[in-house]
Amino acid sequence: MNYHVPGLIATKRDGESLGPEELAWMVATYTDDNLPDYQMAAFLMAVQFQGMDDTELAAWTEAMLTSGEVLDLSESPLQNVDKHSTGGVGDKISLPLVPLVAACGFAVPMISGRGLGHTGGTLDKLESIPGFRTELSIEELTAQVEDIGMAMAGQSEQLVPADRRLYALRDATATVPSIPLIASSVMSKKLSEDLDSLVLDVKVGSGAFMRDIDSARALAATMVSIGQSHDTPTVALLTAMDQPLGAEIGNANEVAESIETLRGEGPADIVDLTMALGAEMMVGCGLFEDEAREMLDKALSSGAALQKFGELIEAQGGDPAVIDDPSLLPAAAETAVVTAPVEGFITRCDALTIGQAAVRLGAGRASKEDNIDHGVGITLHAKIGDEVTAGAPLATVRYHSRQRLEDCLSVLDAAWQFGEARPEPQPLILGEVR
Amino acid sequence: MNYHVPGLIATKRDGESLGPEELAWMVATYTDDNLPDYQMAAFLMAVQFQGMDDTELAAWTEAMLTSGEVLDLSESPLQNVDKHSTGGVGDKISLPLVPLVAACGFAVPMISGRGLGHTGGTLDKLESIPGFRTELSIEELTAQVEDIGMAMAGQSEQLVPADRRLYALRDATATVPSIPLIASSVMSKKLSEDLDSLVLDVKVGSGAFMRDIDSARALAATMVSIGQSHDTPTVALLTAMDQPLGAEIGNANEVAESIETLRGEGPADIVDLTMALGAEMMVGCGLFEDEAREMLDKALSSGAALQKFGELIEAQGGDPAVIDDPSLLPAAAETAVVTAPVEGFITRCDALTIGQAAVRLGAGRASKEDNIDHGVGITLHAKIGDEVTAGAPLATVRYHSRQRLEDCLSVLDAAWQFGEARPEPQPLILGEVR
Repeated sequence: MNYHVPGLIATKRDGESLGPEELAWMVATYTDDNLPDYQMAAFLMAVQFQGMDDTELAAWTEAMLTSGEVLDLSESPLQNVDKHSTGGVGDKISLPLVPLVAACGFAVPMISGRGLGHTGGTLDKLESIPGFRTELSIEELTAQVEDIGMAMAGQSEQLVPADRRLYALRDATATVPSIPLIASSVMSKKLSEDLDSLVLDVKVGSGAFMRDIDSARALAATMVSIGQSHDTPTVALLTAMDQPLGAEIGNANEVAESIETLRGEGPADIVDLTMALGAEMMVGCGLFEDEAREMLDKALSSGAALQKFGELIEAQGGDPAVIDDPSLLPAAAETAVVTAPVEGFITRCDALTIGQAAVRLGAGRASKEDNIDHGVGITLHAKIGDEVTAGAPLATVRYHSRQRLEDCLSVLDAAWQFGEARPEPQPLILGEVR
Repeated sequence: MNYHVPGLIATKRDGESLGPEELAWMVATYTDDNLPDYQMAAFLMAVQFQGMDDTELAAWTEAMLTSGEVLDLSESPLQNVDKHSTGGVGDKISLPLVPLVAACGFAVPMISGRGLGHTGGTLDKLESIPGFRTELSIEELTAQVEDIGMAMAGQSEQLVPADRRLYALRDATATVPSIPLIASSVMSKKLSEDLDSLVLDVKVGSGAFMRDIDSARALAATMVSIGQSHDTPTVALLTAMDQPLGAEIGNANEVAESIETLRGEGPADIVDLTMALGAEMMVGCGLFEDEAREMLDKALSSGAALQKFGELIEAQGGDPAVIDDPSLLPAAAETAVVTAPVEGFITRCDALTIGQAAVRLGAGRASKEDNIDHGVGITLHAKIGDEVTAGAPLATVRYHSRQRLEDCLSVLDAAWQFGEARPEPQPLILGEVR
């Protein structure tokens, strides 16, 4: 069957729905190089304006999913679970979460991304561990999940090729910020992991892609609906991203903070969010919330989760000694301290500003071609609600280049605001979509 | 200067305006093959949704205009005038109009198009005259206008190359029906003719691109505004296209009807519209309406306009004898007659249906690659408001292929409706935009 492509584009342009066969044909034909970029670009822009309904989205995502190979974890007796975050600043949750949930007897075949713009990427953080390999073939990834119950790797060429091509086209054609296109991109990748349960961490706030709770909820609902269409239990938590998560923003320093967390010494927000997401992953497989929480607490306090992180690092070629000695991680020697200009309560500790400052330092990428400097980063000493005296340290910046430090500091100062009264504490978990 | 293209697309996507330099850069870079089709396609779809304001449109059209050569008619002492129709069924007005206005002492450097879909094209009609050449180089066209005060030719490769490329892309990406894109396409071509006055015939009704008066008025206002920005006096008439113009729909038969009109024996609607448009062309050059009408009447009744048509045909390689003997034009020998199934007043004689029937007969193109059969066509014997008896002839179909005749008749019957009372006569000219 061949379709008249301008007719399909016109249907979407005019706000009508396309049929599942039409959408599947478009994705398959595009992936096979038989539908030109310009027609897909016009279609994507029409989707940007007109959206897609649930039936369309299910078909579109399924077609992306079947554009390449998918994981086959049927040899493993474990249930497969995963988490996806829409991206934030200081969001290293995946690092403690994967070994923690694996220590509870679940398999976690996590495929992650790299940082772009002010948000960090799990793969970049992991690569600050000496020797750590994030490029695994499907066969390696499958074998490792069967062997130790977890893997954290980049998207292989064989998985969801339609998404890779569509994402590059969206990036070039200003069609990135479309809820159905974001949702289908995320979900096609996650559903290719052969999951029994998926948890989405949809960030809301200045440091997140979604600035307000309503658009975050819309994105969450769209992704959950795709999961349901695919018969994969999916739940989304809406979580705050007005200030960074934890105290560390960077790469190696975020790994160190993750190890601290697995030692039971992590910051409250990191611990709370890791536990909440871990529990949801397990509840999606049929456990009761209390039961899941108890298993997670035990895996953490017994040191089993920390040991599991060591196994992960070793399996992917990294040096597991970092677990006992985080000083083996790269760290820039030079430091500078940002201090409070006045005394008072911190009312703002802006995630976007701090994320952008970290990019200027070299901890992130301004464009896709940039290299990451794993040893630089920012450590926060005070966050929203904390009381400080004038001159008290707000953050320590670890840097290699004086020029980059100055670039960083020129934006970093604007991150904080101070008030005379302690601000109302805001919840970390703002809502959920099931 | 280089711009970040996704940023420009995003600006339009978000409903903001682009600057004149940005738009000029986009058109120039696209024409030079340095802006890929997929980015232009996304931009065009964003324009489809968000439109362009008058300043943007002026800059966009000007950039298209300067993407190639333009006519230079400064050697000719005459004022240059032209008319553009948005296309209809039986719309052969250009054929009597050009020689008529030229006979009044104005130069008409008309660049025309071909028919596509249910609407006919001036070039196709002219090419039914044995020997007539519609492909003229800019030099040939200029010389002919200087010599005999008129030319009717296709768009040369050198004129407005940006429009040719953009039009092909719009056709493939469902971005044709956008008022700013239609308006800039038409106006860039017309303004490349170095005009002193331009008249637009914006068709409204079932056989027109614009089905209702409001969208026709919006298109007319947009085109007039572009003309003003370019300092070219431009006026638009909104004219009815619910039923075909005149009695003939096809190619050679429309040429014959045009010759009849130039003999003073044309159907009232053809004569009235030709006169109205001709008068506007001349009024745009500073003449009074009465003065213009008088000159046109004289050029017609004296036979000067008919003689001028002969000059045009001869100059472009055609056989001018057709003027005295229209039987030299091709005409299919076989005919079939459609008759009225009931007695009554004709309340509908649908332009779209009749146009589509003519395409099936071979008089038009269903796709760009199709060839035109110049000798086939439809002759209407009765139009809206006429009273007929049951069995009275409604139309004669002239055909070459039995199969095509049947294809034609299978839709043609639906063109007519009948009522017991004579319908209110509807005006031909519905409005104007100055």
